[in-house]
Amino acid sequence: MKDKISLRLIGLVHSPFTEQPGTPIQPSLAGGAEGWAEVYPEYEAGLKDLEGFERVWLIYWFDRAGPAKLEVTPYLDRETHGVFSTRAPTRPNKIGLSSVKLLRREGCRLFLAGVDILDNTPLLDIKPYVPDFDVFEAGRTGWLDKRLPEQVRADSRFAQEK
Amino acid sequence: MKDKISLRLIGLVHSPFTEQPGTPIQPSLAGGAEGWAEVYPEYEAGLKDLEGFERVWLIYWFDRAGPAKLEVTPYLDRETHGVFSTRAPTRPNKIGLSSVKLLRREGCRLFLAGVDILDNTPLLDIKPYVPDFDVFEAGRTGWLDKRLPEQVRADSRFAQEK
Repeated sequence: MKDKISLRLIGLVHSPFTEQPGTPIQPSLAGGAEGWAEVYPEYEAGLKDLEGFERVWLIYWFDRAGPAKLEVTPYLDRETHGVFSTRAPTRPNKIGLSSVKLLRREGCRLFLAGVDILDNTPLLDIKPYVPDFDVFEAGRTGWLDKRLPEQVRADSRFAQEK
Repeated sequence: MKDKISLRLIGLVHSPFTEQPGTPIQPSLAGGAEGWAEVYPEYEAGLKDLEGFERVWLIYWFDRAGPAKLEVTPYLDRETHGVFSTRAPTRPNKIGLSSVKLLRREGCRLFLAGVDILDNTPLLDIKPYVPDFDVFEAGRTGWLDKRLPEQVRADSRFAQEK
């Protein structure tokens, strides 16, 4: 097992959001914002039957996040927390995870709602969202138990320096 | 944006499962199987406050999966489906995703239950499991709506050739 792993892009996510400030911080806070994913034609066969699923997981690369930080102040708190205790993008591996609604598929294009992802974000994987696999009770959610209610859109704190 | 993305290992997952046959195919089917994740010391600061969360997402690398296949016959069906419509490990990017229970943290070690991951699996990321972000209704789950009830442990179909 090598210490470095290489990934290939399987496509791009398109959305109305071209910069971090104003982008929803989670699909559940995205107010239904629509977008689409363009999967490269060489992967189209992998999408067979995906249209039967109401929701899908998108796994993607936070390509415009700043350098990794192990402690961050997330949007929903004023205190710092370990980055693995948050969903902030400035992670050692900048992997993003969002459950979005799949409105329909047209060949290599997936039309989506509830998108909290920047336009032109590199797509790494798609998995079906399956309540039997993905829904669990979790009564304790750490610092998020008393999170700030007001901040549901991103600002520039996790962006690359210009 | 380069076409190839490099990841670094942040640690390893340890479990009772040393080969695919017999490994649970999902955390919800793991019968509470316990394991632990060892995060490398250089990333320990990133774990601060994670112990407040009842569950976490582990994002990992299916290092012992065979070559990518765009169409697969998953454990829960006898028909083939596009690999992105399944959670099979033989994906273009071999990224695995499991929501596991976090029993406790001791420094760099996370003690876990509901583990469906092979022993010594490379760990890429950890995120808190947050019902407000991760739990959605999804009435339609495609081919899984009429899945096979009997198969809840893996066999060797997605393993590397020996």
